[in-house]
Amino acid sequence: MSKGFTLWFTGMSGAGKSTLANLVAEELRARGHRVEVLDGDEIRTHLSKGLGFSKEDRDTNIRRIGYVAKLLSRNGVVAISAAISPYRDVRDELRREHERFFECYMDCTIEKLSERDVKGLYKKALAGEIKNFTGISDPYEPPTHAELVLDSGKESVDESYKKLLRKLEEVGYINSAGGAR
Amino acid sequence: MSKGFTLWFTGMSGAGKSTLANLVAEELRARGHRVEVLDGDEIRTHLSKGLGFSKEDRDTNIRRIGYVAKLLSRNGVVAISAAISPYRDVRDELRREHERFFECYMDCTIEKLSERDVKGLYKKALAGEIKNFTGISDPYEPPTHAELVLDSGKESVDESYKKLLRKLEEVGYINSAGGAR
Repeated sequence: MSKGFTLWFTGMSGAGKSTLANLVAEELRARGHRVEVLDGDEIRTHLSKGLGFSKEDRDTNIRRIGYVAKLLSRNGVVAISAAISPYRDVRDELRREHERFFECYMDCTIEKLSERDVKGLYKKALAGEIKNFTGISDPYEPPTHAELVLDSGKESVDESYKKLLRKLEEVGYINSAGGAR
Repeated sequence: MSKGFTLWFTGMSGAGKSTLANLVAEELRARGHRVEVLDGDEIRTHLSKGLGFSKEDRDTNIRRIGYVAKLLSRNGVVAISAAISPYRDVRDELRREHERFFECYMDCTIEKLSERDVKGLYKKALAGEIKNFTGISDPYEPPTHAELVLDSGKESVDESYKKLLRKLEEVGYINSAGGAR
């Protein structure tokens, strides 16, 4: 039985966390891993209904995702979270509670995110129309010791994807391609 | 990889759910299964802080345990819940959402539970000192289609334990003894 771990993405809205999470999940399943992507919206529905976007409520939501990730990963599953998780102290708390925790920071400037702005959220947030928008009207605290930092403003999705897989292989968390296919 | 399932105990406080859950967990681990016991108190702390004991809050708590059990069991883990889970409709809802769900009802009369009363809770509840006490000042709805009913007022723990293991083997949810040791 392969060992589980938690792959924890962090970064601002639109930085590419979910895209990369789903690509990696598909590849790891093909390599014989059990994988569960903990979708932020689904978790809000099932575990955190009623919570808002204050620091306290965000922390509670992130701790709940972290708790579920811990249960999964200690039972051999690769648990992947793609929630924004803006606060450093809670991410570090989760790391301490995990046996195997891999933090992947999707770094991207506000300028670049505003340029892309697929959902039109940055335009609204910069116009002051969205309260508690991470990185604009609410804090985002980048990690200081992430296992991997991806410059998603400059790199293509494919480049980021390859870097991440290579790094996960290096630390011995995942099967090599072809190994368990 | 062995398939997971959810083993859902239900029954009143003191009926022996946790005792049996932990005994079975130990045995299934020895047979090569991944097992996670979802402890009611731990879940209240991690996923349901702030919830009370109204029907709505109890339902929310049970749905959260059920959601986590579903994530675990669909990834090959035997997820065991030993929460009271007094309401039939929510238990049936969880069953519908699961691929493999095994409900084990620990049946026991109030008279028997009051006799034992290890924690002294029944005495207090019968004296009206505990609000929302399941089976006395709050409803308990027994299952109508449980996979197994154990008469924990009459049977010894060992008898219940053997019946449960035999039934789980019969339905093909667990490895036979010695198989994967």
